Amino acid sequence: MEKSGVGFSSVVSTVSSFGGDLVAIDVIRSSKEKSTRDITVNIPVPAYQELLDALEDLSGVSVLHVSDQTFLVHLGGKIRIEPTMPIKNRDDLSRVYTPGVARVCMAIHNKPREAFALTIKRNTVAVVSDGTAVLGLGDIGPHAAMPVMEGKAMLFKQLADVDAFPICLDTKDTEEIIRTIKAMSPGFGGINLEDISAPRCFEIERRLTEELDIPVFHDDQHGTAVVMMAGLLNALKVTDKDIGSIRVVVVGAGAAGVSCCKMLLAAGVKNLVAVDREGAITADRTYANEMWNWLAERTNPDRLTGGLSDVIEGADVFIGVSGPGVLKVEDLVRMAEDRIVFAMANPEPEIDPELAEPHVRVLATGRSDYPNQINNVLCFPGIFRGALDCRARLINEEMKLAASRAIASVISDDEVNENYIIPSIFNEKVVDSVRSAVITAAIDTGVARRIPPEFRSLCDYTGYGLSDSYKR
Amino acid sequence: MEKSGVGFSSVVSTVSSFGGDLVAIDVIRSSKEKSTRDITVNIPVPAYQELLDALEDLSGVSVLHVSDQTFLVHLGGKIRIEPTMPIKNRDDLSRVYTPGVARVCMAIHNKPREAFALTIKRNTVAVVSDGTAVLGLGDIGPHAAMPVMEGKAMLFKQLADVDAFPICLDTKDTEEIIRTIKAMSPGFGGINLEDISAPRCFEIERRLTEELDIPVFHDDQHGTAVVMMAGLLNALKVTDKDIGSIRVVVVGAGAAGVSCCKMLLAAGVKNLVAVDREGAITADRTYANEMWNWLAERTNPDRLTGGLSDVIEGADVFIGVSGPGVLKVEDLVRMAEDRIVFAMANPEPEIDPELAEPHVRVLATGRSDYPNQINNVLCFPGIFRGALDCRARLINEEMKLAASRAIASVISDDEVNENYIIPSIFNEKVVDSVRSAVITAAIDTGVARRIPPEFRSLCDYTGYGLSDSYKR
Repeated sequence: MEKSGVGFSSVVSTVSSFGGDLVAIDVIRSSKEKSTRDITVNIPVPAYQELLDALEDLSGVSVLHVSDQTFLVHLGGKIRIEPTMPIKNRDDLSRVYTPGVARVCMAIHNKPREAFALTIKRNTVAVVSDGTAVLGLGDIGPHAAMPVMEGKAMLFKQLADVDAFPICLDTKDTEEIIRTIKAMSPGFGGINLEDISAPRCFEIERRLTEELDIPVFHDDQHGTAVVMMAGLLNALKVTDKDIGSIRVVVVGAGAAGVSCCKMLLAAGVKNLVAVDREGAITADRTYANEMWNWLAERTNPDRLTGGLSDVIEGADVFIGVSGPGVLKVEDLVRMAEDRIVFAMANPEPEIDPELAEPHVRVLATGRSDYPNQINNVLCFPGIFRGALDCRARLINEEMKLAASRAIASVISDDEVNENYIIPSIFNEKVVDSVRSAVITAAIDTGVARRIPPEFRSLCDYTGYGLSDSYKR
Repeated sequence: MEKSGVGFSSVVSTVSSFGGDLVAIDVIRSSKEKSTRDITVNIPVPAYQELLDALEDLSGVSVLHVSDQTFLVHLGGKIRIEPTMPIKNRDDLSRVYTPGVARVCMAIHNKPREAFALTIKRNTVAVVSDGTAVLGLGDIGPHAAMPVMEGKAMLFKQLADVDAFPICLDTKDTEEIIRTIKAMSPGFGGINLEDISAPRCFEIERRLTEELDIPVFHDDQHGTAVVMMAGLLNALKVTDKDIGSIRVVVVGAGAAGVSCCKMLLAAGVKNLVAVDREGAITADRTYANEMWNWLAERTNPDRLTGGLSDVIEGADVFIGVSGPGVLKVEDLVRMAEDRIVFAMANPEPEIDPELAEPHVRVLATGRSDYPNQINNVLCFPGIFRGALDCRARLINEEMKLAASRAIASVISDDEVNENYIIPSIFNEKVVDSVRSAVITAAIDTGVARRIPPEFRSLCDYTGYGLSDSYKR
């Protein structure tokens, strides 16, 4: 908006002086005193903020609002709710709403399991966050967390046809979060916890898994671990190492780190050392964090102490879920031959990939601009698709490990190599492969409450005590 | 499913003996021991249950599952969640999800109001129930309530393009319901409370309205009251009576009844008597229910006592939100001339419409099979459309009354008559008319936080202290 008398030409010349290209000018309002214009500009990213500052400094001109393509796709939100059929007339209305709906309500009241057949519960997951650990941004609150959760809902739908709805909570209290999620759970078939900071996320997930009969999955922990494990399985194939004989060092024993450790143990790793800021976790100490005591009992067989430099010697695998710069080149080169490094800190890895590359056999990061991106988009759509389709009560370690193996298996033995241990998130085989593996594992471990038709021939389902009506 | 050897013909003959028409037979599974068939039958509604019982009594035959058109439209639920755009490539992904989404998150973090522009909050309403007062079914629980809430979400979308998501709560505790809704509210632009039993619904709505800055609206109370008031305004036109001079008796002082009374008072009714099971509510008594004390102070100017028969004499208007058979013909005929009767109990009105019709000038019910159906589908889509579009902090009495007048005004003076005081729920003018009236009332009463473009010329918006950026 500029005052009349102030030449709009000053705006035009400022834009071009920063290398901007004026694409369009639309007059919104105009009076004798002032004009409001919507101007569209193509400008190189680095000059964006400078141009903005320069425009705001122009006398008689004020910048009312700035948008760009990223902001434009967010206008009004990124998901919408659609009826599955139009209500064209009274007859339709009397089926989907009163009075016909009453019979459907009573059918569920009389047989609660029918909720899975007759409501959205069958296909709907809540994506729940308290906004305390959003991306790398930290505790930005529930309103600001919504765009991430909406993005996740988009991915759920597009990749796995799961209806996901974002719920951001205006509380950080562990008990209140648990109570709220339990109270609002009846309409949902699963709960995807997201971006909740440690250590609260452990307790919240554990309690909800115990107290609800639908799967609860903290994606930041397990999504990362499942995809890391998929990559590691293929990396071991490339380096011809055996999972039972490798020595692994995990740096960062927060939410994702603990889940990675559990996953590695479940997959058969015998020699694992977890390192956090206080040093290697060892059974010689007792920790305030209960998860660390659990880890201490099951890892670090040689009871090593000290920091990363003290425990890295001879390690086959480095798994980083910590922060930038944690792994130095001088430590890296002390690892075993054919070393495997997963530097997953985001956006800045534990070691600069350019520095690491000459010294490692397989390198993976969390970034999309290097090969082997460990991205949990490979996990959550398929794992929930599978869990919903077999009405799993929960998602257990066996199902997660099955998901890892399924992701790894999408890359054939002919294709797998140092730069291709992880499929693309756009690879259409991933979701189906994860879904099948997860369902099979759920049936095998007795947590499936429904056997999808294509799995009925695979198992003696009478052995699971399922009545015919369970198979709908 | 029938055992082999048992003739399927017994099923066929049983179906036809009840007047059923066998439309199709699909074999699902077949073995030497048994066959499972999916049979489709056209059958008159009254014979439905009898046929089912007869089939179940056939020896060697078992009925695995029964469905009908109403159940079929409910399979898998009645709403779905859709992305607003497909994620076709990395570029799209980096805008709607990491890393681009981070800038959008921070924009909201820095300026919380941006949540209305950049997330689904702008257009999304939670339809929340605890399942305690569902239709005429009572306390059937949160799972069984879902089909009603999903139906409501369909209507929200189809009629007013509002994205509504159903949340059914697994708690009946007033404080816990309030806490849960507050905790999950950040992503929503409004809360539609539904089918929560009295008196908890009053406290829940009052507290949420005070403690949240988005509109909270208990549809069972106010939806009914708004549409009743719309019908009454037109009924008064038909009978040429003046709202300031009429005597009104309201029977049933539950959730809807109290809201009807408030609405009638706000619209200018001077002589109003509310009657419940304990008789006429009067200032001569004190009640445990706080709402009744509120009513007692403002109604029943003659301090009448006793039941409906004792207070009906000479009344111009009867408003029933109670139960079947409450109004007797002998009481009805003691009302004033040109009497107006709204018998809204559902599914059975306070008086049989066939019995009432000869004695009344205007009759309205909650049923679709008589003229003048008082249906809150006429209210909630438009009232939330308006409240969302002007980002109202709450929905006040002025906005509700404006909605009533808007619904009434859809019927022109030329059209209005004894059998047409309420527009059809499919009348496309209703939502737009309600929306405009609600926005205007919200602006006039200072609860609007945004002036939609088409209303800016109507008001001196600088008077509301709105900055330019508020008008997006």
